Amino acid sequence: MSLLDTADATLIAEQVRTARISPREVAEHFLAQTNAREAEIQAFVSLDPAALNKQVVELKGPALKGLLAGVPVGVKDIIDTHDHPTCFYSPLYQDNRPSRDAHVVALLRQAGAVIMGKTHTTEFAYMQTGPTRNPLDLSRTPGSSSAGSAAGMAAGFFPVALGTQTAGSLLKPASYCGLYAFKPSYGLVSLEGIKPLAPSFDTLGWYGRSVGDLALIARVLIPGLTTTQPASGRRTFGFCRTARWGDIEPPVADALLASLDVLSAAGHRVTQVVLPDEFVGVFDDHLLINDCEGARSLAKEWQSSPESLSPQVMAMIERAQQTTWEQETAAKARLAALAPILKALFAPFDAMLGATCGMVAPLGLEATGPSDFCKFWMAFGLPQINIPLPRAPGELPIGLQVVGDYRSDSQLLDAAMHVDHALNGACLIR
Amino acid sequence: MSLLDTADATLIAEQVRTARISPREVAEHFLAQTNAREAEIQAFVSLDPAALNKQVVELKGPALKGLLAGVPVGVKDIIDTHDHPTCFYSPLYQDNRPSRDAHVVALLRQAGAVIMGKTHTTEFAYMQTGPTRNPLDLSRTPGSSSAGSAAGMAAGFFPVALGTQTAGSLLKPASYCGLYAFKPSYGLVSLEGIKPLAPSFDTLGWYGRSVGDLALIARVLIPGLTTTQPASGRRTFGFCRTARWGDIEPPVADALLASLDVLSAAGHRVTQVVLPDEFVGVFDDHLLINDCEGARSLAKEWQSSPESLSPQVMAMIERAQQTTWEQETAAKARLAALAPILKALFAPFDAMLGATCGMVAPLGLEATGPSDFCKFWMAFGLPQINIPLPRAPGELPIGLQVVGDYRSDSQLLDAAMHVDHALNGACLIR
Repeated sequence: MSLLDTADATLIAEQVRTARISPREVAEHFLAQTNAREAEIQAFVSLDPAALNKQVVELKGPALKGLLAGVPVGVKDIIDTHDHPTCFYSPLYQDNRPSRDAHVVALLRQAGAVIMGKTHTTEFAYMQTGPTRNPLDLSRTPGSSSAGSAAGMAAGFFPVALGTQTAGSLLKPASYCGLYAFKPSYGLVSLEGIKPLAPSFDTLGWYGRSVGDLALIARVLIPGLTTTQPASGRRTFGFCRTARWGDIEPPVADALLASLDVLSAAGHRVTQVVLPDEFVGVFDDHLLINDCEGARSLAKEWQSSPESLSPQVMAMIERAQQTTWEQETAAKARLAALAPILKALFAPFDAMLGATCGMVAPLGLEATGPSDFCKFWMAFGLPQINIPLPRAPGELPIGLQVVGDYRSDSQLLDAAMHVDHALNGACLIR
Repeated sequence: MSLLDTADATLIAEQVRTARISPREVAEHFLAQTNAREAEIQAFVSLDPAALNKQVVELKGPALKGLLAGVPVGVKDIIDTHDHPTCFYSPLYQDNRPSRDAHVVALLRQAGAVIMGKTHTTEFAYMQTGPTRNPLDLSRTPGSSSAGSAAGMAAGFFPVALGTQTAGSLLKPASYCGLYAFKPSYGLVSLEGIKPLAPSFDTLGWYGRSVGDLALIARVLIPGLTTTQPASGRRTFGFCRTARWGDIEPPVADALLASLDVLSAAGHRVTQVVLPDEFVGVFDDHLLINDCEGARSLAKEWQSSPESLSPQVMAMIERAQQTTWEQETAAKARLAALAPILKALFAPFDAMLGATCGMVAPLGLEATGPSDFCKFWMAFGLPQINIPLPRAPGELPIGLQVVGDYRSDSQLLDAAMHVDHALNGACLIR
């Protein structure tokens, strides 16, 4: 048992900055964790101990004093890295070696992080799944599309990982694997060097071992975002079922509702929010826009090598081809018209609570379940956090979603710390 | 005098598809044009006849029957190409050789186009200018930031070129150099492999030798956009001065107003549109958002090598640092609230008319003049076209801007064809 088994990135970087532990020791610990279970988990599509060692050896100067000094990071394989291939889980890109790092990878390295390797994604971050298994139950999916990043986190292969989300690709795996995840407001994090799917929604996000880690990485990847130590005191939450609550599995609903009671008992205020009927179309509008934008984003591949695309991507493109320009325009207009109504519903609250997923991780590796509880908020670009609920030994993870108003990312991180404190006993102040 | 001196891409590709001219002859013509004047114009930052020849030799199959068969294209040097360096006019990227083409470059090649070379941009498509001169008057700027693409078009180095626009970077050079230019609605064209500046505004656009060319390239780069042969008949235009009309030079205003008379005389209807007072803040809000997003997009470079950034970029970052998170949020909220009001103003019209710039190309190569007449519409993501007004020999170009409602790109192209027909006698039907 090592401190590094449970230490979050905040603590690891602090230990490295104060020379209590060396970056090499940190890297070796996580490499050993990986070697112990990677054969059964398959989180990595590219793992290169030599490239990792090179980064550790070259870590010096400001990076060694950085916010993420010596912290190993798993990087979803739709994000460019100069020292690993970037393959999008597509046979078309097996030989793709980018010449430079994605913007976010460069920022991580400048803050002292070291890239552990590239983690499995679905094909182009869409639906065709890879071989990755859920570390909590190998017969189950870790969720998609940020599958390798989530599974690697749950298996202890790295304490931080990058993912992306267009519908539920970051938070769904977090719910299935019991992880802290943060998807910031749309547009805050540079997507330079990241393969687009549906640019109206595509957002980079990350996994950490605590809400504090989520905030720490936000300081690195969102320059100018002010994050503060959360003051104590009561917070005010909305609780929003959305039109998909009827699909939720009863034990998941029970666990979520019980967590609201805990929050109330801790002195916070939780008020139910009922959405106007017109919000019922949001799920379909997200799907339609995702289809049309996805088809445009993958037009290059579809034109040149349709035989190399999965049935899932081909089905998406076929749906897009059967959608008129006017239908897409109307879907975007409907979402734009709903945004101010939703904003008004957020106004009384520090954050909104809801389900992250309607089920625990399903059996099998091919299907990963619906993303509706995530995509509802994605349609409006809102910041989202997954907080794993406390579970008894042997129980599969369930996630509580905490959602902020647009660009209220700092307030959301504060609210999530209070939720995590009340539910999981996490420290408010370090 | 060759057909290729004036032939547009539509005609060139037709000649190539029907084997009336070979891709090699086309490439050799434009290379000869380039060799004759490139020393004084400096449109190219990277020109490689061997790479051009390789493309011509390898042109076969569907590409040789493509919409752009054999058409040479100039590519702004913030857009990745696998066979040329991509340097962003920054010393930080002198050795940057991307491993793959930007999405749009790949689509162009798949349609049969050949890449002539990389054209000069300002540093990171912001304000630090390069050496490019205006072919119509070497003592004047071609405008920025798509300087090399615009100057190369005006000098006859290529019949099509790619640029990008965040404020006025595509249309301003078009106005100064007398070019047809199209900036589509925000979000329609994939930006994969293009360096971001302000992602809320960044849009790829292009120059062509006719409105027909603008539509032809739209078919290649916006899969799914329906473009039709324009029917004859009257069109209905708004004419919008914006709050910057007072800054316009009198001869420019006179030429623009005279063009409205020509349109009316041709049977079209032109109605003045007066914006509500609250639109006066749009220019400042665009600037503020551009600063904040630009600072985030260039955080990697600023953190690692501030000494390599221009004073213009440093000033942008300093302004961003003095802007609060709440100020940026408020600026975005103001634009979002104005968008439906503007949409209602567009409703009665096929398109809106206005100035592209308030001046002809200014003297000198360092300053390129304000972009306010372009950035006003950019703030709302609207599609924009520049139509060069007819000018007497020796007169510098002036551009008329034609603006469409959001995602009404097809209608805008139709309206622009009618404007060009009335003003310049361009054929409506080919």
